[in-house]
Amino acid sequence: MQTVHTREELAQLDAQDPLRRFKNRFALPESVIYLDGNSLGALPHGAAERAAQVVTAEWGQGLIRSWNEAGWFELPLVLGDKLGQLLGANPRETAITDTTSLNLFKALASALRTQKSDAPQRRVIITERDNFPTDIYIAEGLADLVNSLSQETGVPYEVKLIDDEASLRAALGDDTAVLALSHVNYRTGSMWDMNQITAAAHDAGALVIWDLAHAAGAVPVDLNGADADYAVGCTYKYLNGGPGSPAFIWVNARHHDRFWQPLSGWWSHNAPFEMAEHYTPANDVRRFMCGTQPVTSLAMIEVGLDIALEADMDAVRAASLELTDLFIELVETRCADHGLELVTPREHAQRGSHVSFRHEHGYEIMAALIARGVIGDYREPEVLRFGITPLYLSRTDIWDAVEILREILHTGDWQREEFTVRNAVT
Amino acid sequence: MQTVHTREELAQLDAQDPLRRFKNRFALPESVIYLDGNSLGALPHGAAERAAQVVTAEWGQGLIRSWNEAGWFELPLVLGDKLGQLLGANPRETAITDTTSLNLFKALASALRTQKSDAPQRRVIITERDNFPTDIYIAEGLADLVNSLSQETGVPYEVKLIDDEASLRAALGDDTAVLALSHVNYRTGSMWDMNQITAAAHDAGALVIWDLAHAAGAVPVDLNGADADYAVGCTYKYLNGGPGSPAFIWVNARHHDRFWQPLSGWWSHNAPFEMAEHYTPANDVRRFMCGTQPVTSLAMIEVGLDIALEADMDAVRAASLELTDLFIELVETRCADHGLELVTPREHAQRGSHVSFRHEHGYEIMAALIARGVIGDYREPEVLRFGITPLYLSRTDIWDAVEILREILHTGDWQREEFTVRNAVT
Repeated sequence: MQTVHTREELAQLDAQDPLRRFKNRFALPESVIYLDGNSLGALPHGAAERAAQVVTAEWGQGLIRSWNEAGWFELPLVLGDKLGQLLGANPRETAITDTTSLNLFKALASALRTQKSDAPQRRVIITERDNFPTDIYIAEGLADLVNSLSQETGVPYEVKLIDDEASLRAALGDDTAVLALSHVNYRTGSMWDMNQITAAAHDAGALVIWDLAHAAGAVPVDLNGADADYAVGCTYKYLNGGPGSPAFIWVNARHHDRFWQPLSGWWSHNAPFEMAEHYTPANDVRRFMCGTQPVTSLAMIEVGLDIALEADMDAVRAASLELTDLFIELVETRCADHGLELVTPREHAQRGSHVSFRHEHGYEIMAALIARGVIGDYREPEVLRFGITPLYLSRTDIWDAVEILREILHTGDWQREEFTVRNAVT
Repeated sequence: MQTVHTREELAQLDAQDPLRRFKNRFALPESVIYLDGNSLGALPHGAAERAAQVVTAEWGQGLIRSWNEAGWFELPLVLGDKLGQLLGANPRETAITDTTSLNLFKALASALRTQKSDAPQRRVIITERDNFPTDIYIAEGLADLVNSLSQETGVPYEVKLIDDEASLRAALGDDTAVLALSHVNYRTGSMWDMNQITAAAHDAGALVIWDLAHAAGAVPVDLNGADADYAVGCTYKYLNGGPGSPAFIWVNARHHDRFWQPLSGWWSHNAPFEMAEHYTPANDVRRFMCGTQPVTSLAMIEVGLDIALEADMDAVRAASLELTDLFIELVETRCADHGLELVTPREHAQRGSHVSFRHEHGYEIMAALIARGVIGDYREPEVLRFGITPLYLSRTDIWDAVEILREILHTGDWQREEFTVRNAVT
């Protein structure tokens, strides 16, 4: 099969691309083509300076005074509202805090409490078998806690795993309390239709939680437009917040003043500095916070967020689709007959911004790619995953990455012993 | 009343003090006497460089590879074991992760699960009315979750607040599941006898959780020596980890492989990168982790920890007692007749490393002190709180701070309007 593009033609298109100016905003190493921004985004210029400011000036000189004078205390909400502009959120619906797993626990617990009050027979949490595992583990942990500490035998809380839209629609029923899905699948890149699925769940009486880890900053999201109930996600992937930067939680305002979420630390209290003897929750998204946040890691998020807000999300999405299409086409033409099987849906509406191919020797091939400077990652089972981030990737980057993949496959270079030892890769 | 010391005599003692060398390890601002290291510790030299290394080299150049190559993934356990040396912990019993509030939730949930299995009638969590409020709120949140999602009426989980050792001993009984205390009280500085109280709780069949927020790095702690069950605490006070640096959890090895803790994110899984469909907990302290940690804030903790490990904890404690005694004596002699009332116990064995005085106009007096560069903090109701950190405070610092307090009280300077506006002070 013949490739329809040439590198020269792609270079010409790159030169005219309005998103091109963003590439200079990131400090990427020479000799690396970075296709793992869906796991850890690149370092934006300004983040190191922000960290230095927090540590040297705000901590070192301001000391405790910086909680007020440098605005540390308000950072989760100030940054949350900035992020909320990318997600279709209203002000005070989004906080940047804790981790995605923890925020999912808060959302699930809040949703179960609401259902227990409104429709107590609803005791099933539905999620995906192919969800990022922590989402399943957190749902299992919550169900296990409540079931094991309950006093009587009765219908226990249960986590049901679905495999596709048909089994999802079949599973939604009178016993469903909450549906928790990842908008974009971490492994395959497939994407749910947020509007349709939210409506279907609501029709069945369920509340809906969206995990936006692989969606925020990657695809357009409109949480209020979809009438979603809760959303969680992370800031260190497409939002370029830095390694392990705190996650976010969005809660539809209609759920703000109903029930406690049980991780009810003092930052969720209505008046945290009154040091009151009993708990009174705040009546906005602060209710979904817990304790003191890691300020240096938190403050750096603003640098990546400001870049994301400066870029037009529709332009980013259009570029993502063009680059992912190009990547798929080049792999399928230039690397044909090497056993790579596309696992990401081809349909634009059904996928996010990363592309995955399955190969029996996926681990070794990825190790060989990384050794050549093409950094993607590997996910069990057998999946090579390539994140496409239009803010710092060009068409020629995609071309060059596929050329290196082609060489590795043609030469069989991936069979070298150094590529077969397995390490943890996040 | 006559002060027995002079500034000259104190300066001579300072000059001979073996801990004096540590003061140069911290970057404190000129013209500040910092008496709030019990709220946010000072910036150690090397922390800014460590942050820059994480951001510029490890994130910027290493990108995703740094999870393995820069050891990010192991940081919670590597730093946890370092900290554990200060706490009487065995290896793999301590992790630095999440926040104190969240770690308390994990410990409480694990303790309730254990009691539910071994002694199901035990449904009471005992804690202190004067505990740091988040500890009460978290216990209330957990009890509320379980009670509200339980299906039947029955004996609910309950949080009981005690006021002193007598009411604590009276409260311990057949219904007690867990006792959760702060080793050193955040407001008064009073300290429980960890050995005696742990033994009393065990005699009553209860499990014991110690919150070491105001103890770790401040007073000698031996968790295994006391046979404690769980401990939590923070790293940004006496351990100088940086603003909001992740907290710690210690779990006695006998509880590692019993039950889930419900915040069961993928970092607590036995094989997190297998992406298994169901949860299998790790069998050491990793079971008490949850999700991805804020690497920049986490990595900086090592700088403060290394200093704490280099100092001899017994020498630090001896210096703390000498400096707190001096502070109390100077305030009570040089600031007599101004209505300051000591709320910290005088007995060495009964207090930690901060000293608190109550005054009707405590807020205004503290505001005036801060304006003069003497940084302590204020805690409701009416409490002026002064943290004594021997690694970067000398006898002459204490003398000078009390002199400024004396001037403010003698002149009535605290009555100026600028000191009466209330802001949040953490």
